[in-house]
Amino acid sequence: MPMDEILASIFPLDRSLEKEARYRMDHKTKPPGSLGLLEEIAIRMCLIQKRTDPVVRNKALAVFAADHGIAREGVSAFPAEVTPQMVLNFLAGGAAINVLCRHEGISLRVVDMGVDYDFSPQSGLIDKKIRKGTRNFLQEEALTADEAKAALEAGMEVFMENILPGAPDLTAVGEMGIGNTTSASAIIAAVTGKDPCVVTGRGTGIDEARWKHKVDLIEKALARHHPNPADGIDLLGKIGGLEIAGMAGFILASASQGIPVVLDGLIATAGALIAWVFRPAIEGYLFAGHYSVEQGQKHALAQMRLTPILDLGLRLGEGTGAALAMNIVDASCKVMCEMASFEKAGVTHHI
Amino acid sequence: MPMDEILASIFPLDRSLEKEARYRMDHKTKPPGSLGLLEEIAIRMCLIQKRTDPVVRNKALAVFAADHGIAREGVSAFPAEVTPQMVLNFLAGGAAINVLCRHEGISLRVVDMGVDYDFSPQSGLIDKKIRKGTRNFLQEEALTADEAKAALEAGMEVFMENILPGAPDLTAVGEMGIGNTTSASAIIAAVTGKDPCVVTGRGTGIDEARWKHKVDLIEKALARHHPNPADGIDLLGKIGGLEIAGMAGFILASASQGIPVVLDGLIATAGALIAWVFRPAIEGYLFAGHYSVEQGQKHALAQMRLTPILDLGLRLGEGTGAALAMNIVDASCKVMCEMASFEKAGVTHHI
Repeated sequence: MPMDEILASIFPLDRSLEKEARYRMDHKTKPPGSLGLLEEIAIRMCLIQKRTDPVVRNKALAVFAADHGIAREGVSAFPAEVTPQMVLNFLAGGAAINVLCRHEGISLRVVDMGVDYDFSPQSGLIDKKIRKGTRNFLQEEALTADEAKAALEAGMEVFMENILPGAPDLTAVGEMGIGNTTSASAIIAAVTGKDPCVVTGRGTGIDEARWKHKVDLIEKALARHHPNPADGIDLLGKIGGLEIAGMAGFILASASQGIPVVLDGLIATAGALIAWVFRPAIEGYLFAGHYSVEQGQKHALAQMRLTPILDLGLRLGEGTGAALAMNIVDASCKVMCEMASFEKAGVTHHI
Repeated sequence: MPMDEILASIFPLDRSLEKEARYRMDHKTKPPGSLGLLEEIAIRMCLIQKRTDPVVRNKALAVFAADHGIAREGVSAFPAEVTPQMVLNFLAGGAAINVLCRHEGISLRVVDMGVDYDFSPQSGLIDKKIRKGTRNFLQEEALTADEAKAALEAGMEVFMENILPGAPDLTAVGEMGIGNTTSASAIIAAVTGKDPCVVTGRGTGIDEARWKHKVDLIEKALARHHPNPADGIDLLGKIGGLEIAGMAGFILASASQGIPVVLDGLIATAGALIAWVFRPAIEGYLFAGHYSVEQGQKHALAQMRLTPILDLGLRLGEGTGAALAMNIVDASCKVMCEMASFEKAGVTHHI
């Protein structure tokens, strides 16, 4: 399915069932609104699935990994060699995202979008390597327009070829890439128009001096490249990351098939923001998994009018917050399907 | 096991494993602290279970139900007949707590502490009825001291006889009782010393005029009865509820066996506060499941130095927030047990 066809298949959320879904939720045996966010999630799942008994049977999460030329500027607390090491950790089942996907019954796939390492072919690793990491966007554009487009399409292919055959009701995206909070913060600054110092956080844990250096780099990169905030390929090419492009493509493809996506933290949200630049209608299919400690995320979420489900002080990425939030989306659907109505249960009410 | 023996078996959390547990968590393949609250939960579970590989195999939740004389003062949006109707809904499996316990694999028990209704004996309902609801504490003391003590002991019995044989690693408490936010708010005001208007919320959904009436009732009751904030039986007797007493007893018994308890919202937290008045050391065994919309809860939690796990805008009770939070406690333990260390995974680090 070519990119244009996927983009043309994304429509604004059909709200025709909203009144019926809300009536059904309001007549469950509880005061109206008393299940808070669970009620709003359940109602949106009704609209997405076009039924008032929404279900989450199969859950799938894809982790996109890539390296970043900007990491050479010393923006991370960890060296770039950690990216391939962590990919191997994902494949061995020892990372946080492995633990949480097993815990939540989520099918996990790992995608090499552009890690600076030659992996031996192995089961569990989807090879979509575009190049061994982006170029250093302080010095030059991160990707050519062709590379950016190829990475976006690769993310779409991952969804269509590796995820869709498993008939998922709910998908999620996570990532790994040393240096990628710098790219994500730059994208969020460019799209939202916020000042880099407002949307830039401390990544995996850097000190004040290194944070100022990171903000300074982003300011210089934006001044140098002038990415067009309304052009997803231009943003990805000039200041992007290969895993961010992959997530954007995945999100667009999932929404094109009417399947909702749970976002993880800052970087996944930057990927969603790129998808939103292509098609603002995708916001109807997105759930924000959790509040990241990274401050840029909330500005990106505000742009897409999303409210996070969890707030656990996470700042790891990988999809960890999304994996835990998928359980809440599942629970919300069951509330809608399985709770008795006042009438059925014989409970007095006067709404 | 008599009450005195249970109270004498509650000891402050043994912190001797804390350094070892934190070292183990800090050497997992993630930046230190990047899993936020999950890390703190896992470390506390290590201390409670006295092992660095904590487990949550069996989860049990008890819902305590009772009626309230104060409900006759028009403090709730729902009539008192809803209490027995909802108990029957719990037993039929149609309430929110049934759905969420099934979803999370939690064993659910329902306890009649004092519902104003004659239930036929039936499986699933534990009969601990002390009396058919409390007296109206605006007019007289809610319970005699003997009734209050009997209700507290009944909660302990529920834990020891109905829950402990199932070998739970994690328990939780929830409740049902029209009018019980008024009793819970009064208890929290009495123990924390906060003004009633600060700790009183809108329950299942009342308007401004009824909220003022509720605050006024609590002020009058406190002025009339002068409950002793350091005496759990006096608090329960003068302004308490039978389900609140049952939860307090259950919590004390669970902690006496070294088994942690996840609290639900305002009323369960008021029950925990009564348990805390008896033995402040119980705070080491408690997890706050979620932020209630009810403002009194945060003052009670501050007294016990607890931080809620979830914030989903819930205001239903029944144990719904606790049930969802149990999944996070379980996930936290798995992070500690199943994640690889930097050394084992061959990941570069420099902590």
